[in-house]
Amino acid sequence: MTQLSSPRLTIWNEFRHELENPRVQAVYPDGIHQALAAGLRKQGLTELQLATLDEPEHGLSAEVLDRTDVLLWWGHKAHDEVSDEIVGRVVERVLGGMGLIVLHSAHFSKVFKRLMGTGCDLKWREANDRERLWVVQPGHPISEGVGEYLELEAEEMYGEHFDIPAPDELIFISWFSGGEVFRSGCTYTRGSGKIFYFRPGHETYPTYHHEGIQRVIANAARWAAPTQSAPRSFGNRQPLEVLPERRP
Amino acid sequence: MTQLSSPRLTIWNEFRHELENPRVQAVYPDGIHQALAAGLRKQGLTELQLATLDEPEHGLSAEVLDRTDVLLWWGHKAHDEVSDEIVGRVVERVLGGMGLIVLHSAHFSKVFKRLMGTGCDLKWREANDRERLWVVQPGHPISEGVGEYLELEAEEMYGEHFDIPAPDELIFISWFSGGEVFRSGCTYTRGSGKIFYFRPGHETYPTYHHEGIQRVIANAARWAAPTQSAPRSFGNRQPLEVLPERRP
Amino acid sequence: MTQLSSPRLTIWNEFRHELENPRVQAVYPDGIHQALAAGLRKQGLTELQLATLDEPEHGLSAEVLDRTDVLLWWGHKAHDEVSDEIVGRVVERVLGGMGLIVLHSAHFSKVFKRLMGTGCDLKWREANDRERLWVVQPGHPISEGVGEYLELEAEEMYGEHFDIPAPDELIFISWFSGGEVFRSGCTYTRGSGKIFYFRPGHETYPTYHHEGIQRVIANAARWAAPTQSAPRSFGNRQPLEVLPERRP
Amino acid sequence: MTQLSSPRLTIWNEFRHELENPRVQAVYPDGIHQALAAGLRKQGLTELQLATLDEPEHGLSAEVLDRTDVLLWWGHKAHDEVSDEIVGRVVERVLGGMGLIVLHSAHFSKVFKRLMGTGCDLKWREANDRERLWVVQPGHPISEGVGEYLELEAEEMYGEHFDIPAPDELIFISWFSGGEVFRSGCTYTRGSGKIFYFRPGHETYPTYHHEGIQRVIANAARWAAPTQSAPRSFGNRQPLEVLPERRP
Repeated sequence: MTQLSSPRLTIWNEFRHELENPRVQAVYPDGIHQALAAGLRKQGLTELQLATLDEPEHGLSAEVLDRTDVLLWWGHKAHDEVSDEIVGRVVERVLGGMGLIVLHSAHFSKVFKRLMGTGCDLKWREANDRERLWVVQPGHPISEGVGEYLELEAEEMYGEHFDIPAPDELIFISWFSGGEVFRSGCTYTRGSGKIFYFRPGHETYPTYHHEGIQRVIANAARWAAPTQSAPRSFGNRQPLEVLPERRP
Repeated sequence: MTQLSSPRLTIWNEFRHELENPRVQAVYPDGIHQALAAGLRKQGLTELQLATLDEPEHGLSAEVLDRTDVLLWWGHKAHDEVSDEIVGRVVERVLGGMGLIVLHSAHFSKVFKRLMGTGCDLKWREANDRERLWVVQPGHPISEGVGEYLELEAEEMYGEHFDIPAPDELIFISWFSGGEVFRSGCTYTRGSGKIFYFRPGHETYPTYHHEGIQRVIANAARWAAPTQSAPRSFGNRQPLEVLPERRP
Repeated sequence: MTQLSSPRLTIWNEFRHELENPRVQAVYPDGIHQALAAGLRKQGLTELQLATLDEPEHGLSAEVLDRTDVLLWWGHKAHDEVSDEIVGRVVERVLGGMGLIVLHSAHFSKVFKRLMGTGCDLKWREANDRERLWVVQPGHPISEGVGEYLELEAEEMYGEHFDIPAPDELIFISWFSGGEVFRSGCTYTRGSGKIFYFRPGHETYPTYHHEGIQRVIANAARWAAPTQSAPRSFGNRQPLEVLPERRP
Repeated sequence: MTQLSSPRLTIWNEFRHELENPRVQAVYPDGIHQALAAGLRKQGLTELQLATLDEPEHGLSAEVLDRTDVLLWWGHKAHDEVSDEIVGRVVERVLGGMGLIVLHSAHFSKVFKRLMGTGCDLKWREANDRERLWVVQPGHPISEGVGEYLELEAEEMYGEHFDIPAPDELIFISWFSGGEVFRSGCTYTRGSGKIFYFRPGHETYPTYHHEGIQRVIANAARWAAPTQSAPRSFGNRQPLEVLPERRP
């Protein structure tokens, strides 16, 4: 494994709440993408590009993706405005090896739903629940340097049933004060690409300023960075063994 | 588990090769769906409906699906002619609990690709390879009553890499005389629905007349039959615990 | 799948607390094994044998195991008194196809630890926590007929990290009022045998009188019943293909 | 993930065949451990210790293990001579985070069997079979830099059924010219430790001189290196939430 010292990250943000809702603006004055970028820089990840919904091609031109090892995705109220062409482009890149980190309400993004094949629905409540994310796979690189759990004083609740395929690896389970649980940190491999879904991050809470949350996202970015993949070739093939009596 | 004594099966077949190609007609004079039906009846599964591409709604009206516990799917050359509306209908039923058995070249069907989220491509060769399907999970209900392996004297080769999500359970691995291997029996759960992909069954070979193959498909049909699922409810929720100091 | 209409169950109980502790005696006057048996009978499972630690061979002679499709195991304070010979006998039967349901504090039984290969430790607290077991795999036969969650008014808490291999399937996650979560319903296949670990059932609480808990245990017993396994043969083998030029 | 630039490896070898069998000596004149060391050095892994069965404590003193991030294990004919004390010591280290790479006939080592909980038996044949190891998870760090398959001109055959728990990740499947398949590259997590089983390497073949095989072992060593694990603490706990009405 030739670990990339610093994988090249692109942070995609819908960037609408922050422009429209003063409550969100107070928490993320420069947008969620800038808060994520600041957190990643503190964790030593400095090769960062930013992209938002209202840019041409949503900021995700082929050139931008060519320079992207791992894509982070935050969206909530405008999933439908993401063009199917860009969705297809991102999905193809993931299958080809680009890492993908899906944050919070992006469980309902077109990209995540296409890659999962399920409805990706869940229960939710905005009521300042306390959230505690328990580590259930302690030796995994994504939970590295995190204590036994991460605690968020107040967050939106997400509850089971979460309509996803069983994750390849389950890293975090959330406890909520109102009585629910949630599979909050889930890994998947699709094609040659590694995917991490990470639950926290409602726009009205300062979750992405939390150092432990930043650490997990940075860990995931390093984990999801592409390796030099074995070839994925398909189609008609000659036999590797010569079995003349069997030729048609 | 209230095991359905005889789940209600619907066998869907593209039914084109058999009408156009004398070589296929010689092997499956009444169509692949009729051969599958005959095999399932021998295995004690008698509640059968048949459906083909060129019927109205491809034979998959809501009424037909209402009477279907498990859907079998064989398609090859006309995947694109299956309407997106019917594909969406089938996918929704699967997520809601209907079982799905995906046969051979249906790895490239719209239904399977939508549920997997990957490209589902593979290598192939039509050269009368010998195929040997080794059981790698011997205690699983799908391999019940099968020997250590199933052998097919001649079949189309499918080879890795098979571009699917890692299966929940891997039941069979195929060996081919030309030098390839393939994950030939794969289970998935998506929503409340159970899915089984089973590799053999190229239209020019008498594979579906093979008793061991019939046994596996019957086992899978029984395994994939829906249970009385726990509710899958989603959306906004009141807290289950009274935590007055935290209410918004 | 030839579903056994009523698999033959053997319920093994340590049966010490009930004889020594009046508080436990008040809840389970005839022993936990009898309460489990009563619950299983109500669920239609009537082929039951009972076995306890202080019987000869702990009640688990070869003859008893010959008549056992699925073994249930409850133990707590006397794991060390179970002889290694009987442990080895039970483990061999499980690998050969016998189902095993491991209840509550039997996470620390010799049988479970041998089959898991890990320490199987966890956090715990006896403080009348409320427990809510959320279904995370709704279509699975083990969660059949259960609502979205099972609620226990008061139980011992078990908390993560639970030192087990990642389960093949995760069916339940528990929420506890004191702030913890736990992987409460876990399936494994080992050899040809199916194993289900189910968390609830501390001896001072009436958990096994709860109809929902009884339903889950009955579902699991049906799920874990052996199938007619494909042969598991090992050792030196002649080649299946004749490749004379390669013979040594 | 603070990727260790060069994890500290300890290569354990039974080292008996090489001293007793001229045919093995011809292939591995300095022992299999030295051949493995030479291969790893070529792959940039230079922090190497060597240990063999006949040294005091089999070369695996607590001090040696204190300096070990990943342990490689090759054994065949003397598994029973490995003392239970050392086996227990190694197993504890793995659960605590040390990586473990289990090579070829070490499928039957006490260490691997203890960690798996199953019999770990398989089929075998010494008949100069051709082996082809197909990559089935192309984006995984362990398959990095490997082509679509690795080919070994002649090797001992190992065939299914391989009596192991279903691997967390299946990286390679072997094809053998005599008609068998085998799950040849399997990952597991146990406790905080990562384990990789890798099939090739019979003592009479020059397998460990093969550059592709060396690459896979080096990849696995980097993948299995421990991370700074989240704490794994167990035992009695006070509630994290104050729920006064529920205190005992």
